Amino acid sequence: MKLSILSLGDHLPDPLTGARIPQHQRIGELMQLGVLADGLGFRGFHLGEHHVCDYIVSNPVPLLAAVAARTRAVRLSTGVTLLANRDPVLVAEDYALLDLISGGRAELVAGRGNAFFECYRQMGQDIARSRELFEANLDLLLRLWGDGPVSSDGETRPPLDQAVVQPRPLQSPHVPVWIGGGSSEDSVRLAVRYGLGLQLPGVFAAAPHFASLARLYRELWHEAGWSHAPKVGFTAHVHVRQDGQDARTFWEPYHLAYLDWVWGMIADGSRGALPRPPPAGAERAFADPVKAPALCGSPDEVAGRLAAWSEVLGGIDVMLLKIDGGGLPFGEVRQVAELLAREVAPAVAGC
Amino acid sequence: MKLSILSLGDHLPDPLTGARIPQHQRIGELMQLGVLADGLGFRGFHLGEHHVCDYIVSNPVPLLAAVAARTRAVRLSTGVTLLANRDPVLVAEDYALLDLISGGRAELVAGRGNAFFECYRQMGQDIARSRELFEANLDLLLRLWGDGPVSSDGETRPPLDQAVVQPRPLQSPHVPVWIGGGSSEDSVRLAVRYGLGLQLPGVFAAAPHFASLARLYRELWHEAGWSHAPKVGFTAHVHVRQDGQDARTFWEPYHLAYLDWVWGMIADGSRGALPRPPPAGAERAFADPVKAPALCGSPDEVAGRLAAWSEVLGGIDVMLLKIDGGGLPFGEVRQVAELLAREVAPAVAGC
Repeated sequence: MKLSILSLGDHLPDPLTGARIPQHQRIGELMQLGVLADGLGFRGFHLGEHHVCDYIVSNPVPLLAAVAARTRAVRLSTGVTLLANRDPVLVAEDYALLDLISGGRAELVAGRGNAFFECYRQMGQDIARSRELFEANLDLLLRLWGDGPVSSDGETRPPLDQAVVQPRPLQSPHVPVWIGGGSSEDSVRLAVRYGLGLQLPGVFAAAPHFASLARLYRELWHEAGWSHAPKVGFTAHVHVRQDGQDARTFWEPYHLAYLDWVWGMIADGSRGALPRPPPAGAERAFADPVKAPALCGSPDEVAGRLAAWSEVLGGIDVMLLKIDGGGLPFGEVRQVAELLAREVAPAVAGC
Repeated sequence: MKLSILSLGDHLPDPLTGARIPQHQRIGELMQLGVLADGLGFRGFHLGEHHVCDYIVSNPVPLLAAVAARTRAVRLSTGVTLLANRDPVLVAEDYALLDLISGGRAELVAGRGNAFFECYRQMGQDIARSRELFEANLDLLLRLWGDGPVSSDGETRPPLDQAVVQPRPLQSPHVPVWIGGGSSEDSVRLAVRYGLGLQLPGVFAAAPHFASLARLYRELWHEAGWSHAPKVGFTAHVHVRQDGQDARTFWEPYHLAYLDWVWGMIADGSRGALPRPPPAGAERAFADPVKAPALCGSPDEVAGRLAAWSEVLGGIDVMLLKIDGGGLPFGEVRQVAELLAREVAPAVAGC
């Protein structure tokens, strides 16, 4: 298991002080976090994408490009790229450019973001068609990164007529794409159809919930006869301190501030389609050693849960750790990153 | 007059050797050029934007963000941002993010790119409506950067309903916008209406051609009663060497290779609407001291022509110098930048 850092780019006040840092400081700290991820040897640095809401990273690419300019090895990716909401021509262009800027370190996790009704509404799209839009755009994206000119029928964007987009990705055959999803078998089948990695959304539930999907993904992968290996990614909110009880006490207000904010925003955006307050059970918890989807504790406790999850999922290739947000001061984020790199990463490297 | 560096991101072989560097090297050299522009004290570093053609910079923002991460003072801008072809919501987001990444150094020169028929065609847009699309998107962009939620009628993108885009620009009132244009008085009137700078496309003709537009811009500006100053920018292909004749002899094959390529591409994209070969007169020349739109010669010759242009235009606030492209090796580009900074910039600073 390799560890990567994920930020979703929320911009909340510190719940203990009520103070909120300026946006440019938050963005600057995200750049520092990417540099830190590189320096500490994390596999990747992932950023989320959100539109017309209170998250402040609307496009991961420019921020990843800035991090690329200051780093050497860390892979630069997303969580998720809203592929249903963007023109795949511009996605093909932007991530290829990032690939060139970073010397071949770009990746993307493509997702539907189908909890975010408001984004679809302001983009003039029907969220009920999100899967259809997503699959059509994924197909077009991969064709645009393939060989030769591309024509398309205009299903989700104006028709293309023998189009060749520039620049071309540095990596071959293209910038690695992962399917970010796992609410149903559809995501699994889609990832297998195109031979892509599967990034499971562990923030919504702990690993056991996704075990059958991971198994199905690997079974279908082998049936499909792909010669390259399947890749399973998982995701969690994480906080770690030397003393596990200290971690839980310290982190609780930050974690709950984030969850309450994001669920409230999603529920409001859904205009009644999703409940407010949302399901307040498992996804808020981080003390339950089996059911909690968040990881919080000492390095040993966190490493132990990661190892258990890996077993449940038949192996985790890449684990995305969301360690910032909810107003957590950057000094704390830095300490968590350092502790994860020093004590957790080596402990789970063989899982 | 302040000098800035512009690249359009073409990717041509060296006409002397026929060899073409890989795309990632070209992109890396553009990043180096931005860093050089900062180190040498140029006002700005500008990048062009092109879609579905053989230019390889499809979005200036990620590349400018990478340059921002390695620089301290240079302003990061475009030439031009294709505002008619992009969703203004995403433009508002991307340039605000660049503004935050760069600590308030983002600008943009918004243009129609209305020579590029192929881009409009592949974006499913009618180039005959380019001005209408451009003006509607400009209006929406500036409203999105203003105070309060924005609603729109869906003229050029799906309707917005009380939308607030994030992040917010660092600069106040917003990221500076220039109107890139000058083929008619419409651009001038548009710039004045919104209190924006005017970036004249000097690559198409020398300064005298634009004198009446610059005069009109300043007249209308004062009539409009804006309290801030009008800003006139101008643009040229430039090559400078210590010996003027040496400059002309050395540069000719690179300059003509670029012009032939770009005019050929534009003519082909227009499918007969524009002639091929295009008007081959003044815009190819760089030896004529009055009519040539390109600047080529010794530092004294180049500074002299810039001073004369400034007089003709009633002052040039920012002069964009396109010094790369056409396959010119980066070592040569670097020497031109250094000579411009050392000998031309001081000579024209008071113009």
